[in-house]
Amino acid sequence: ILNFDKDLFGVILFLQRLQQQLQTQPGSLPFDEILYCNIGNPQSLGQQPVTFFREVLALCDHPDLLKKEEIKTLFSADSISRAKQILALIPGRATGAYSHSQGIKGLRDAIASGIASRDGFPANADDIFLTDGASPGVHLMMQLLIRNEKDGILVPIPQYPLYSASIALHGGSLVPYYLNESTGWGLEISDVKKQLEDARSRGIDVRALVVINPGNPTGQVLAEENQYDIVKFCKNEGLVLLADEVYQENIYADNKKFHSFKKIVRSLGYGEEDLPLVSYQSVSKGYYGECGKRGGYMEITGFSAPVREQIYKIASVNLCSNITGQILASLVMNPPKASDESYASYKAEKDGILASLARRAKALEVAFSKLEGITCNKAEGAMYLFPQICLPQKAIEAAKAANKAPDAFYALRLLESTGIVVVPGSGFGQVPGTWHFRCTILPQEEKIPAIISRFTVFHETFMAEYRD
Amino acid sequence: ILNFDKDLFGVILFLQRLQQQLQTQPGSLPFDEILYCNIGNPQSLGQQPVTFFREVLALCDHPDLLKKEEIKTLFSADSISRAKQILALIPGRATGAYSHSQGIKGLRDAIASGIASRDGFPANADDIFLTDGASPGVHLMMQLLIRNEKDGILVPIPQYPLYSASIALHGGSLVPYYLNESTGWGLEISDVKKQLEDARSRGIDVRALVVINPGNPTGQVLAEENQYDIVKFCKNEGLVLLADEVYQENIYADNKKFHSFKKIVRSLGYGEEDLPLVSYQSVSKGYYGECGKRGGYMEITGFSAPVREQIYKIASVNLCSNITGQILASLVMNPPKASDESYASYKAEKDGILASLARRAKALEVAFSKLEGITCNKAEGAMYLFPQICLPQKAIEAAKAANKAPDAFYALRLLESTGIVVVPGSGFGQVPGTWHFRCTILPQEEKIPAIISRFTVFHETFMAEYRD
Repeated sequence: ILNFDKDLFGVILFLQRLQQQLQTQPGSLPFDEILYCNIGNPQSLGQQPVTFFREVLALCDHPDLLKKEEIKTLFSADSISRAKQILALIPGRATGAYSHSQGIKGLRDAIASGIASRDGFPANADDIFLTDGASPGVHLMMQLLIRNEKDGILVPIPQYPLYSASIALHGGSLVPYYLNESTGWGLEISDVKKQLEDARSRGIDVRALVVINPGNPTGQVLAEENQYDIVKFCKNEGLVLLADEVYQENIYADNKKFHSFKKIVRSLGYGEEDLPLVSYQSVSKGYYGECGKRGGYMEITGFSAPVREQIYKIASVNLCSNITGQILASLVMNPPKASDESYASYKAEKDGILASLARRAKALEVAFSKLEGITCNKAEGAMYLFPQICLPQKAIEAAKAANKAPDAFYALRLLESTGIVVVPGSGFGQVPGTWHFRCTILPQEEKIPAIISRFTVFHETFMAEYRD
Repeated sequence: ILNFDKDLFGVILFLQRLQQQLQTQPGSLPFDEILYCNIGNPQSLGQQPVTFFREVLALCDHPDLLKKEEIKTLFSADSISRAKQILALIPGRATGAYSHSQGIKGLRDAIASGIASRDGFPANADDIFLTDGASPGVHLMMQLLIRNEKDGILVPIPQYPLYSASIALHGGSLVPYYLNESTGWGLEISDVKKQLEDARSRGIDVRALVVINPGNPTGQVLAEENQYDIVKFCKNEGLVLLADEVYQENIYADNKKFHSFKKIVRSLGYGEEDLPLVSYQSVSKGYYGECGKRGGYMEITGFSAPVREQIYKIASVNLCSNITGQILASLVMNPPKASDESYASYKAEKDGILASLARRAKALEVAFSKLEGITCNKAEGAMYLFPQICLPQKAIEAAKAANKAPDAFYALRLLESTGIVVVPGSGFGQVPGTWHFRCTILPQEEKIPAIISRFTVFHETFMAEYRD
């Protein structure tokens, strides 16, 4: 169940061949464009960047502009003042210099203040490590936690494959726990405990628990009570809690709200001594979706001074994260306020994107749920649906004959027939004998009907061919 | 001799304490500013970014500007046309999207064409992997080459500590070879061969040879004949050649010229079958010095298809490098041409920076050479001088009593007395019993006289205290 890599990579290679064929032999395929539902990469599909953020980045990239009168007609007043403010935080106003290995101190202050107003609990710039997206922060912690193959990390299944890849890279053991599909991908402490004890009985020193909230690929938003249980469990078992919270702004269900694990920990009255916690945030997700800027941070709390020094040392090997990404991370944690000139247009852009994502999620969920043998949980958050397909035995045998996982076989057939790219569940892990695919909600809204109708026709044809 | 980390980190921690003390208790130290000669970070010391590059970045960050008439008074005509050209190369003009894991294809084409005109031999976009600075590319290759502690990598001593850190991180063995200080830090094949055979006799599978040219920390530029010998040696011994060429634009000696190893390999008539070669380039160095943008690339040639696929797979775990850095890498490899509007100002900025760096290198070299017990090779290239200090026995004993390497002891004394930060030779490795420090040539030109006079007074006082 954990051969993530082979199945994921098979789809990527096939996709690259098709992309080439579309260019070199147009008309030779049964579709004339690829419909990307495979990667959480909103701007590649036409989502526009938030204007205020880009105005500030442009001014910081070319600070000489700030000396010119003409910029007042080209940039909003608050983007100009924000850029000036940010440049004043950067030693020598040098956006082209390596920064402190944790990131520019003034930007970390701004991020800490954004975290504090999100959570209602204080945050500290010394706890912030700015990173090139969330991935390097995950690698850094895995490097710290894993000494050899006897060190284990609890990871949800299904999971985002960064975790399996990073654990493998650092030579540790992935200890899987299963999310419960029948309760909307709930995290059941009893299962986590069982897996933990089982791993310990095999001599694995389980060091940390990964939680992805909102979920990837599963799109659930954890209930607050569930989060309290997770935190208490980590404290009781002496586990580091690695909280992947990069989808914190992507919430679509009216009855759900994002609570950071930092807030949950502090709400329980736990302080620095009680629980080592790492929270990951990224500029790639949210309504901003600035994947190409590779910005993000991790907030680390509850680690001893020697461990913190070790984390700093590892961070300093690569010098620092990119400054554009650092600036953007400070912006997404401190967007325009109601009194700012940009606020109205900023708010309209943000709300427009999030409302449209919610509509797309709903439309796809409804469409998938109508299909024979497919069940689909709600996308409460994140950018994904992860429907289960009950594949006929004949399809499973055909997949076996083609040396493919059954869901990879399904996804490849879908791709070659329709140009729709989804990721097979095998790429994320799933309960043995169940099959899924991950479909993003990111294609532009006007493409959703075509995706639904092409998908429906494909699925019906597939079932007609393989129905037992 | 290879305890790089402890000595380097001691200086960094002490420096951070002093920085804080200067802020919180001004006047409490014998100097009122830190003079940074420790890191190759030009813009942190006042070097201004090249205007053309920043104009293009600002326009790419906020493409809506391109629709406005007013930009014609704010941006050069060729920065506007270049930004349009670059946006046209990016799928969906989306500078906020993850790119292909090797980097945006059109930008790789541009870089390949820049390489081809530099070398006079063709280059291929498929061989380019864009990275967040050179460091991640080095880690990637170490991850690929090192399976366990029996896999060895030949590394020059003195070396840039990224190499020791990356080899340690991936669990391999660093096989040191010594640069010859008495021939201006020449690389002697006979020594490399001796070290290779010695390592092999200890059961080490030596997989690659690292060459840093121009040298860091040593500042030499390899002679063309020497490069031919290195390439032939790698071919004969079946070694991958990892060529760190990030200082390729930083040449100060009139009789020296940079030749890429790719050009040397092709000049020898070697093709894809003959030699696996990785060449690293970065936007952080050169006359541009854009460290904070974290842009760079590696060009890989001579690897088999399965190995290339493996490299691509590892690269894809972290999705892609930052797009601003990708764009900048394409710009530094394709700067304005003589017919472009920006050319004159671009050329003046570039020549001004490089000429000033050459003057600073010369002034520091002359000053160091005048001091008792110090000998200093020429900085032919890169951004560093690496003088040798013949420390008196009494100083060596005082260092031992303080539990410090003698050159770390010297560097810490220099720092606490003058505020001048240099990096002790122990941080890079050196022939046992010799002591050095690395001093960058990057402080702004008007600060060089103060550095020289403060350094001279310190050194004379130090020698008076410890002279045998």
